[in-house]
Amino acid sequence: MTSLRGAKRRSNLRRLRSPRPLHEHKGGPRDDREVRASLICVGSELLRGKINTHSSTLARRLMSVGIHLSQEQTLGDDLQPLSEAIHEAIHRFPVVVVTGGLGPTFDDITREAAAEALGRPLLASGRLLRGIQAKFRRALHRRMPPANARQAQVIQGARAIRNDHGTAPGQWIELKNNRVLILLPGPPRELKPMMERFVTPNLKRLFPSRPREEAHFHFASIPESVVDQRIRPLIARLARRKEVQIEFTILASLGLVDFSVFVSSSVRARARQLVHEVSRFVQRRLGPYCYGVNDAHPLEKVIGNYLRQAGATVATAESCTGGMLGARLTDQPGSSNFYLGGVVAYSNAMKVRGVGVTEEILRKHGAVSKPVAVALAEGIRERFSATYGVGITGVAGPSGGTPRKPVGLVYIAVAGPSTVRVQSFRFPGARDAIRQRAVNASLDALRKTLDYSRRSTS
Amino acid sequence: MTSLRGAKRRSNLRRLRSPRPLHEHKGGPRDDREVRASLICVGSELLRGKINTHSSTLARRLMSVGIHLSQEQTLGDDLQPLSEAIHEAIHRFPVVVVTGGLGPTFDDITREAAAEALGRPLLASGRLLRGIQAKFRRALHRRMPPANARQAQVIQGARAIRNDHGTAPGQWIELKNNRVLILLPGPPRELKPMMERFVTPNLKRLFPSRPREEAHFHFASIPESVVDQRIRPLIARLARRKEVQIEFTILASLGLVDFSVFVSSSVRARARQLVHEVSRFVQRRLGPYCYGVNDAHPLEKVIGNYLRQAGATVATAESCTGGMLGARLTDQPGSSNFYLGGVVAYSNAMKVRGVGVTEEILRKHGAVSKPVAVALAEGIRERFSATYGVGITGVAGPSGGTPRKPVGLVYIAVAGPSTVRVQSFRFPGARDAIRQRAVNASLDALRKTLDYSRRSTS
Repeated sequence: MTSLRGAKRRSNLRRLRSPRPLHEHKGGPRDDREVRASLICVGSELLRGKINTHSSTLARRLMSVGIHLSQEQTLGDDLQPLSEAIHEAIHRFPVVVVTGGLGPTFDDITREAAAEALGRPLLASGRLLRGIQAKFRRALHRRMPPANARQAQVIQGARAIRNDHGTAPGQWIELKNNRVLILLPGPPRELKPMMERFVTPNLKRLFPSRPREEAHFHFASIPESVVDQRIRPLIARLARRKEVQIEFTILASLGLVDFSVFVSSSVRARARQLVHEVSRFVQRRLGPYCYGVNDAHPLEKVIGNYLRQAGATVATAESCTGGMLGARLTDQPGSSNFYLGGVVAYSNAMKVRGVGVTEEILRKHGAVSKPVAVALAEGIRERFSATYGVGITGVAGPSGGTPRKPVGLVYIAVAGPSTVRVQSFRFPGARDAIRQRAVNASLDALRKTLDYSRRSTS
Repeated sequence: MTSLRGAKRRSNLRRLRSPRPLHEHKGGPRDDREVRASLICVGSELLRGKINTHSSTLARRLMSVGIHLSQEQTLGDDLQPLSEAIHEAIHRFPVVVVTGGLGPTFDDITREAAAEALGRPLLASGRLLRGIQAKFRRALHRRMPPANARQAQVIQGARAIRNDHGTAPGQWIELKNNRVLILLPGPPRELKPMMERFVTPNLKRLFPSRPREEAHFHFASIPESVVDQRIRPLIARLARRKEVQIEFTILASLGLVDFSVFVSSSVRARARQLVHEVSRFVQRRLGPYCYGVNDAHPLEKVIGNYLRQAGATVATAESCTGGMLGARLTDQPGSSNFYLGGVVAYSNAMKVRGVGVTEEILRKHGAVSKPVAVALAEGIRERFSATYGVGITGVAGPSGGTPRKPVGLVYIAVAGPSTVRVQSFRFPGARDAIRQRAVNASLDALRKTLDYSRRSTS
């Protein structure tokens, strides 16, 4: 994130370390309207090598309701330091989120630590207990183990947050002076829907933000640095306008780039106008690379929608990606409407037998070559009677590279009713990154083909 | 992490938040010999959605020299909170690592913040400056921009840490009472080699560790709670032995469970003995579920090794997993030695045409059924002339479930030279979790078949 107000905030280094009384903190040292949040992740496994994706997940969702994540910390499963950290955080930040440590075992100590920090008792909730027992019966087909009864304990004054994907309910504890402590389970598949359905709507209610507009743009087949270079001067120019505050983020991952812009202003029309200007600029300068705006539909969903609208189908023939493209296309529910299936032609024999690549092409050009990518795309399209066929062949490494065909070289072909397009790529990174980039690039190649055919028929 | 010393530490919750004088902190509240580290990650981008991999990287490297990462925190590019956090951390932990914020721009404030926290001046180093200038000339073929001169500033008393992959040197500042503050640049490709070459050897010198032994066990097809129930009493018993300290972690993810045990003792033989007892216990009580010990080989690698040793091959026929099993089997380099390929038979037509499932079986039993799983496994085995064939069919949801065939129902079959085994599962969770659990279960089904055939032939 690049905040164009940063420079002002740097002066006046204070050294306050003891907790300050609540009433001093209503505004905080920054913009009166800026609501700041602190995230505390609990779990010794996060200090033992497990990658923590919580701050990434929560930062974005908080930002969507105008709340800035100001600090994140990760602590082990020890009661005392956690309780101290919660105590300190709720005195410094109006929004404190604690993730993890809500499981049934004795090292799940978030409930106790939060109760300690607030100086409130933990109460056993009969309603929650019955809910957890019912979950075990219905979803897991067994009786609730006695240990799980702990998950029905709530802090006095807390609202339970429903968890549709696990047994641990979350807790929402509103404190005086418009502050809130939120406890959420650690597993992302439980945490994310709870954030969407309960936490962000309630945060919005508690902290109605200054009029705020935002837009999100999703790009493929363009480097992050190019997006950054083109957009930064525009943002700098817009930031000079009066009474607006504009911020943006650029996140890149394996060949995909997400750009978000956030504008707040006391006058909503002004914020809206700025977002509109950014959108127009993106369309003009980066249009062909942009596969989606706002709703963060993954590329495979965009493609699914295109195919469904056209009544078209696709089949895949993958070599170096080993099934990853098929896996991505079927990530979305309902993909059976447009994805027929595919062949993982990992061995040469399978390229011949499963897809109909000729021995001659393989001999003449080698398995990693443009003609083989084309033969895979055309062969699978024909065998499956699909509207489109995608063929991928490449060197994922780490071994198997040669000076002429180095690790990272991937050919991607898309065969349609009348044309075949084939492209070569040199992807950086390790085996997994190369394979994921190849999948993203093949999805984007398919998108471009579909986009082209949509435009030429409409 | 579950520490059996936890219970003792729970009492007497202290509320010390102001910095305590250095001499009080030499040992900390735990074992005198346990060296604890704190990690501070600097960078507003890490609070705006970027995934932070530093704690994962550093935790493992620190653990390799017997140092426990006890806390991690992420802060934005603001001088005051960072300086406060460093000040507090160096009073609480003997090892403090700060990553990021060593770049040349004005929002890179780690040098200043650390200098403030230590109350020491920043000095311009002529030697470092000449080094950075030379890097620009040699590697980037241009003159050093004036801004980069800041990267040659070192805290009084610091040793510079050479950076072979970027312009920002690190800093190693030894403090009194055997404490150290370490500043490292943020980019992983700069940070990792600096950790390897300079930081871990110097930490080893500064904190020669107490003898320490550990073991790691990897399970499939068994719930986390069962592993926990069986192992906990053993650990509790062992923890009562004199002069040992035993800790363990249990991590579960989508049908796989990892259990690690860490033992330290002033007598290495004693630590080794305890780890040995745990290993024997695991073998006796959980043997069939354990697919790996120590080296954390993923399940697909274990299977690859089995297949390679046996000179056997495998082919896959996937329906609801859409290629994910193929993708997993080809995650490992060299998988072309044993994985021939597969068919993603997402549509019924493809089950018939691509794998040879008969229309009759599909009509009679439905696509999600035991006979279809068997037909997929046997069909693909035959078509690809593979030693083993794996067939998966199921309802990944969220729609498509019926009372008789609910979402989460998955049939997995493994066909070998003489037998076919088929199992049904009811996986909990959302679409993605169901698909991933199905892949893990099918890998484990294959492992069991291979394991059985290894044992019956040896």
